[in-house]
Amino acid sequence: MRFLHTGDWHIGKKLHGYDLLSDQKEIIDQILAIALEQKVDAIVIAGDLYDRSVPSVEACELLNQAFIKINLEKKFPILAISGNHDSAVRLSTGMPWYEQTNFHLYTELKQSFTPIEIGDTQFFLLPYFEPIAARIYFAEEHLTLQDAMEKIIEKMQESFNSGKKQVLVTHFFVAGSSRCDSETTIEVGGLDSIPYELVRDFDYVALGHLHSKNALNTANARYSGSPLKFSLSEKDDQKGVWIIDSQSVVPEFHELQPKRDVRTLQASFESLVDPAFYQQMDRTCFWYFQLTDRSVITNMMNQLRAIYPNILGVERVNGRNETNQLKKVQQRKNTPYHMLTSFFEEITGEALTEKQRLWLDEGLQQAVDTEKREEDAT
Amino acid sequence: MRFLHTGDWHIGKKLHGYDLLSDQKEIIDQILAIALEQKVDAIVIAGDLYDRSVPSVEACELLNQAFIKINLEKKFPILAISGNHDSAVRLSTGMPWYEQTNFHLYTELKQSFTPIEIGDTQFFLLPYFEPIAARIYFAEEHLTLQDAMEKIIEKMQESFNSGKKQVLVTHFFVAGSSRCDSETTIEVGGLDSIPYELVRDFDYVALGHLHSKNALNTANARYSGSPLKFSLSEKDDQKGVWIIDSQSVVPEFHELQPKRDVRTLQASFESLVDPAFYQQMDRTCFWYFQLTDRSVITNMMNQLRAIYPNILGVERVNGRNETNQLKKVQQRKNTPYHMLTSFFEEITGEALTEKQRLWLDEGLQQAVDTEKREEDAT
Repeated sequence: MRFLHTGDWHIGKKLHGYDLLSDQKEIIDQILAIALEQKVDAIVIAGDLYDRSVPSVEACELLNQAFIKINLEKKFPILAISGNHDSAVRLSTGMPWYEQTNFHLYTELKQSFTPIEIGDTQFFLLPYFEPIAARIYFAEEHLTLQDAMEKIIEKMQESFNSGKKQVLVTHFFVAGSSRCDSETTIEVGGLDSIPYELVRDFDYVALGHLHSKNALNTANARYSGSPLKFSLSEKDDQKGVWIIDSQSVVPEFHELQPKRDVRTLQASFESLVDPAFYQQMDRTCFWYFQLTDRSVITNMMNQLRAIYPNILGVERVNGRNETNQLKKVQQRKNTPYHMLTSFFEEITGEALTEKQRLWLDEGLQQAVDTEKREEDAT
Repeated sequence: MRFLHTGDWHIGKKLHGYDLLSDQKEIIDQILAIALEQKVDAIVIAGDLYDRSVPSVEACELLNQAFIKINLEKKFPILAISGNHDSAVRLSTGMPWYEQTNFHLYTELKQSFTPIEIGDTQFFLLPYFEPIAARIYFAEEHLTLQDAMEKIIEKMQESFNSGKKQVLVTHFFVAGSSRCDSETTIEVGGLDSIPYELVRDFDYVALGHLHSKNALNTANARYSGSPLKFSLSEKDDQKGVWIIDSQSVVPEFHELQPKRDVRTLQASFESLVDPAFYQQMDRTCFWYFQLTDRSVITNMMNQLRAIYPNILGVERVNGRNETNQLKKVQQRKNTPYHMLTSFFEEITGEALTEKQRLWLDEGLQQAVDTEKREEDAT
């Protein structure tokens, strides 16, 4: 059998404040088109369907419509799990009815032990879970994620049918993977990672959680990556889906083309606002500009936004009066004053004027005074 | 055919801060028991399934489990609509899958024109809608709710099968009905009401929105009322469901017994805290006490709560120094001072002490000063 592996849709996610719903709708249509063209027998979605546990009404509508199209209209079986961004309970509403049309949406650890068989393949759907859920399930007080995973895989192996292939669908950080900026670290200090050895015995491991398809390079375990770029750090990623044939189990990558790409460009302000220059560019992209200018540019962001509506940010690659600035920055490092000025510079690409600095000083002094008064009062 | 008419479940609603989830779970089980005993062919739920457009995870879980039990386990067809408290989009997630097992959950005006036929009866499911939805649907700019309803009923009549009975399920205020305290008024000034004449031609109109089963008394249109008392004003209501047989169309009322009833009692503080007295009482009820005492009672609420865990409130029927109080109240009526003092008295059953009055005066003065400063600054 053949299946498509995707994940980390993060429906409802915003990119630097920009709404991505229309991009997400469009990219799901592309995924569906690949599924049709590749004649797959199932679509695997490896968690983080939504970006938030309480998604907006618009996000709910988009995902619901996507499922209707994929499962009810095009009749693709869906094998999906909840990720760390999803609310398991909210997502699973309606699940027992979905099962009737081979739309399997697993959100609880206990569901993972009963494989779903399609053709020659057994799919084990293991949603994201917190260690506490495993401790309750196995009635053991001190299980780490790694302990829990050992027990889970062992229990799954009891259901392995040697005449079939085994695929694990899950949503965790596999040790040795590389991260990017748009992922939420679940725990710190490596407690959240699963050793690769634990999942070695599966014919294929369809992973979700990390947003780059290259996050992990092993023979049988792969992240699908997100279908869209969700951070600047992903600007050079190629987004897409994997197509896996259970006979070869060598995943084949199929590219997705976003409606609005994330790109960076180093240029002078003068060229960016020159029609001869910008008419050659795809101005609908999410642009991040690295300005080569050193001088003050009045009303810079407004001028740029008038031409490039989706600017992610602007930085100066040749800072003005660099030595002086550096000295000041070092003096002020870690003070509220420093954080506010550098935030302002990062966002606007401009330094505060003398007047603005004065206002900031006054505001900070007032805040300090108020805090002191409140402390004295208690 | 026979059906059960209920509505206004308001899953997730709190009563004076008390969580009602366990009461709601239990009362749904009673509704299901009546459906089984009465061998009905369908269960009609006339809107306001949830209390809020974004219900809590616990509320989602409760309603989802209820639907699983009613529709998937006990195989009852469900005919449900969204009410003004529900988010139509959130509630309708999964709807096309529900249809497969005769669970019809209509949340859009346009769905109401296709009747659902069960046995000898046509059910028209008209969810709560805002006038703007009707204006868009009929492409007419100035429709009032009443205009819209005329057009809707007219359009429904085109599908009337004269060999069948017609039932309308909807969620509005029908003119002439009487309100109680736990309902949310949708609009003011009577704009939200539907004249009874418009729905006269249906064999039965299963209404939701008002919480008393006696809110409307007509031959063919009835509110089911809420299954639980959601306000003190409902203390004397009898809650239950209607059972309707399409042959007679005379609704038969079946009572529900809440786990914790809402009750009031007039008594002295001394008797309320006397074991000989309170051991005779159902102390799990939601009690509202009308104290006959005139003197100050120290730590009154804590003493009462230790005995009656679910107190809704306490009032003094013989206010202390009534003449003086009344005079003061009249002087202060509608001032923030008055609202705060009467709120405090209503909640605690005690007047503010001199010291507390002083604090309140100071606090209000500070608020006024701050507001003035801010106005001056702008």
